[in-house]
Amino acid sequence: MTSDEFDALFQRVCNWGRWGPDDQLGTLNYITRERMCNAARLVRKGRSVSLAIPINTVAGPDNPHPAFHYMVQAYDAPKGSGEPQFALDYLACEFHGDCHTHIDALCHIAYKGKLYNGKSASTYVTSKGPSTMDITAYANGIITRGVLLDIPRLRGVKWLEPGEAVTADELKDAEKSEGVQLGEGDALVFRTGHHRRRLELGSWDNTYDGEGKAGLAANAMLMLHERKVAAFLPDGDGETVPSNVEGVTYPVHALQICAMGMAACDSLQFEELARVCEEEKRWEFMVVAAPLRMPGGTGSLFNPLAIF
Amino acid sequence: MTSDEFDALFQRVCNWGRWGPDDQLGTLNYITRERMCNAARLVRKGRSVSLAIPINTVAGPDNPHPAFHYMVQAYDAPKGSGEPQFALDYLACEFHGDCHTHIDALCHIAYKGKLYNGKSASTYVTSKGPSTMDITAYANGIITRGVLLDIPRLRGVKWLEPGEAVTADELKDAEKSEGVQLGEGDALVFRTGHHRRRLELGSWDNTYDGEGKAGLAANAMLMLHERKVAAFLPDGDGETVPSNVEGVTYPVHALQICAMGMAACDSLQFEELARVCEEEKRWEFMVVAAPLRMPGGTGSLFNPLAIF
Amino acid sequence: MTSDEFDALFQRVCNWGRWGPDDQLGTLNYITRERMCNAARLVRKGRSVSLAIPINTVAGPDNPHPAFHYMVQAYDAPKGSGEPQFALDYLACEFHGDCHTHIDALCHIAYKGKLYNGKSASTYVTSKGPSTMDITAYANGIITRGVLLDIPRLRGVKWLEPGEAVTADELKDAEKSEGVQLGEGDALVFRTGHHRRRLELGSWDNTYDGEGKAGLAANAMLMLHERKVAAFLPDGDGETVPSNVEGVTYPVHALQICAMGMAACDSLQFEELARVCEEEKRWEFMVVAAPLRMPGGTGSLFNPLAIF
Amino acid sequence: MTSDEFDALFQRVCNWGRWGPDDQLGTLNYITRERMCNAARLVRKGRSVSLAIPINTVAGPDNPHPAFHYMVQAYDAPKGSGEPQFALDYLACEFHGDCHTHIDALCHIAYKGKLYNGKSASTYVTSKGPSTMDITAYANGIITRGVLLDIPRLRGVKWLEPGEAVTADELKDAEKSEGVQLGEGDALVFRTGHHRRRLELGSWDNTYDGEGKAGLAANAMLMLHERKVAAFLPDGDGETVPSNVEGVTYPVHALQICAMGMAACDSLQFEELARVCEEEKRWEFMVVAAPLRMPGGTGSLFNPLAIF
Repeated sequence: MTSDEFDALFQRVCNWGRWGPDDQLGTLNYITRERMCNAARLVRKGRSVSLAIPINTVAGPDNPHPAFHYMVQAYDAPKGSGEPQFALDYLACEFHGDCHTHIDALCHIAYKGKLYNGKSASTYVTSKGPSTMDITAYANGIITRGVLLDIPRLRGVKWLEPGEAVTADELKDAEKSEGVQLGEGDALVFRTGHHRRRLELGSWDNTYDGEGKAGLAANAMLMLHERKVAAFLPDGDGETVPSNVEGVTYPVHALQICAMGMAACDSLQFEELARVCEEEKRWEFMVVAAPLRMPGGTGSLFNPLAIF
Repeated sequence: MTSDEFDALFQRVCNWGRWGPDDQLGTLNYITRERMCNAARLVRKGRSVSLAIPINTVAGPDNPHPAFHYMVQAYDAPKGSGEPQFALDYLACEFHGDCHTHIDALCHIAYKGKLYNGKSASTYVTSKGPSTMDITAYANGIITRGVLLDIPRLRGVKWLEPGEAVTADELKDAEKSEGVQLGEGDALVFRTGHHRRRLELGSWDNTYDGEGKAGLAANAMLMLHERKVAAFLPDGDGETVPSNVEGVTYPVHALQICAMGMAACDSLQFEELARVCEEEKRWEFMVVAAPLRMPGGTGSLFNPLAIF
Repeated sequence: MTSDEFDALFQRVCNWGRWGPDDQLGTLNYITRERMCNAARLVRKGRSVSLAIPINTVAGPDNPHPAFHYMVQAYDAPKGSGEPQFALDYLACEFHGDCHTHIDALCHIAYKGKLYNGKSASTYVTSKGPSTMDITAYANGIITRGVLLDIPRLRGVKWLEPGEAVTADELKDAEKSEGVQLGEGDALVFRTGHHRRRLELGSWDNTYDGEGKAGLAANAMLMLHERKVAAFLPDGDGETVPSNVEGVTYPVHALQICAMGMAACDSLQFEELARVCEEEKRWEFMVVAAPLRMPGGTGSLFNPLAIF
Repeated sequence: MTSDEFDALFQRVCNWGRWGPDDQLGTLNYITRERMCNAARLVRKGRSVSLAIPINTVAGPDNPHPAFHYMVQAYDAPKGSGEPQFALDYLACEFHGDCHTHIDALCHIAYKGKLYNGKSASTYVTSKGPSTMDITAYANGIITRGVLLDIPRLRGVKWLEPGEAVTADELKDAEKSEGVQLGEGDALVFRTGHHRRRLELGSWDNTYDGEGKAGLAANAMLMLHERKVAAFLPDGDGETVPSNVEGVTYPVHALQICAMGMAACDSLQFEELARVCEEEKRWEFMVVAAPLRMPGGTGSLFNPLAIF
């Protein structure tokens, strides 16, 4: 895809102005009160599954910013003689990247100097933090129907290989195979098997300097736009690396976040989810996901849940 | 209450062994699959409310460990010429204490050298972290019915003053006043108005060296035990400071976490929740709360949601 | 002092261009090789004194950013069975401010949009860090003669009270009283007793919202300029708060760092130093001070030494 | 070397009790006042050289704990309209390991459950930190004569290859070749070319799982003991990996720190130093090194200086 074709695609999926010039929610506006209630009705078995990777403190080719996690106080050394005694810990993390399960704020991505809704990136997001569209816009959480489209299941493979790009047609094939249809206000839970590959083969460099990663084809965004998907929860980060777009390293993020205002998440894992979907023979469930309420956050570590 | 009386109370509410010697879930065992499904049925309006205080980076008398939050990258200084551009941030926090909304792991509290289920504290929680009952035990979240017992509403005051202790009788009065009854597997959402007082009067020193805080009377734990409450979500941290228990500074934590194995949370805020309950004329709702999936965590920052 | 008078003073002490347009050392250029050798000759007793305050992890009115310091590994929980065993720790600090002994880089201060040497502040110091005059400019350390001018000793008081400003005349009186003269390339070690006051009375709010602090009068900078002082090491940070300069909250920093290019340090302590000077009956000594070699640092924690 | 032979060597170099049971300084006791003065007399040229590696924020095979360094405030986003404006930054680091120039406290190493001077490791160094021999014992710095023994220079190679061990005889050959003799109270500056290898070939895994590293032979400690060396400043960390001692992974640390009480530093670089020594045709100089004054520190980042 040439740079011009990409810009045309950007225009086709662009939601700027759709919900007003000061909108903070983007595609979460698709989650009406009714849809939130419908999502809750999917809870019919009382099963819950975490979609988060355990926080990773070990540096590796895909974890250049391992989290710092330390005990502050343990029980080998009681603090004074009082009761009770406390154990405490501390966590520090630069969470963006390919190893920490997180959600992006709408201010996280700028394309050609513009944020979602056409706001000037350099005006609104400075060294003092963002003054619009930070992660607190999502403070009340993402609560909607989740639909798992499990591409390795469709293909009968363990995982997609780095560099493979999933098209809209393949998403539709997955819908058919699972008997589910992605609709307005839904969260697309998109499985490439990225995390399973990591569990079995170990971590790898998934940047442009390394092996890359499997993800969505850039023009699959048209389908997500037409279906009015509210949120995107991939393993990996949804990007195909290398991308097939000239001059745009991460086209999926540019389209989803900047053009569409979509709630985009990165680096989830669906290994247990895939098993539960198989057991329950359904690929739809209630999703509840809440970022930390961090003023000025460009995103947040979080632990999204699928509830059956 | 004398120290001996407290130890007798500890025995009366003690759940050690109830769910086996290696139990990791404690009172979350009360949340059966059926109760989780019932909780989801409370979602009838499609409204969601965050119960978290915004993460606080400002030191104060009740915030001795302000979080560090910094921008890693902003748009004033693009990194190279590629597209898209990214804004990034970093968060570091020692989250226990009275200012950061968090959940405690069962390993967080030891009484007389023992953790919940009678495990030796010094054996299981060392400087290398806990080897049992860390916060990942709650990785699949707390999903159940929440019941707000709003004591300032009952009393017709803005907030309880520091040092005031709420008894079981008063909890029952609140139930009557709200037409709701706390039952097995529920999350008790307990409002003293702590956070409203902070918003209106500013922060104060709520430790033993300062003004203290309002909370539960220690023997109100008997009622929570009999009702088989699964989780406790207070503003403040549920403790009355000073406590009325001789030699035990934080008796509520000792009873809840160590004796009962209850999922205990600290420092939430219910200002918007109280308004929504009033508007909806119901004080029950679905609660969904998920800690970060942090191996070795003694607790976690989180953003619990009440869903109507 | 009016704003215009301040700008005139700024011009009088301005060293922009003095050592070339790309100079990174500022007044450290005054420390010739000969002066460094002369400083070493002051080591005649073999005594060394730390000028640093112990790193402070306790929040307080003058410590809004307490350092995080945690054990990473201790000996209660050996890691494996190997020998030897290790104890490890971790330190995180936002070090500028009034409680952590540190040195400022020349990029730390901008006045009217300009850094030292007239460089554009917004061009050179972005959210990605400074691209000129970071703390690595001082990587080889500050090695020169230090002269302690001890104002409380001169006045016969324990400390100067917040708000008091020391004039050039009083600096000269201190020189006479101590039999020493501040000269070219020297480090001025300037004692107000700030730290002694803190030790005896406890911490206080020394900002514009609080009690303020004692320091230099803004026009004392003329004397430092004429004497060609290389470095400034105060207890407190050298500023009088409130300043007597209209519209300039921290005039000493603006003059020293931005106009003069002087190596400026903050929040040292001279309690032991003052005693040693008294014992040795000399107020001059070798100073050796080295910041951490942190690319992009706007300053650094450090531990400067006075050697007799 | 068998484990028993190592224990015999440990006894031969053991300084326990030599300076009293509560000694905090270990071999720094060798630096008498006279020796400190003599060291200062080596400053005859007025040249200073940093021995620190720039702080490294990039994860790699030898940097599993990259430092976090962020701008707190820059000039793209002025804070209010006041003058002057400030640029601020933040540093977080777990500094032990092979990539951050640091000094070890005497509490950093335990052998068979004992610290230097025979203190019980588990008693004195708990999750709350060390209660003896922390890094503040060195608060007044290490000020003495430094002697560079440059082994690659002696051998006529660029660097020693991983796994190579330098013997006492080779140290003596280096002395002869440089016309210098290591003596009582000196700092041994020991160059293997580790850092040059890293600069030219890139980082490598120097642990037991990887390629290893060059260092001292364990029994070279006898010579350091007999010469009464006060401090050890290596590039790398002085260890040969794999060690030739059965069952002891890091024998040099065990001997130096635990048996001898020697001030041991890790991960310095001597590339500029080696050039200056060559230019000056002398391999002795004044060393001044001061750790941060961190109560409870098991070591510290620092920036040691060699002064000619």
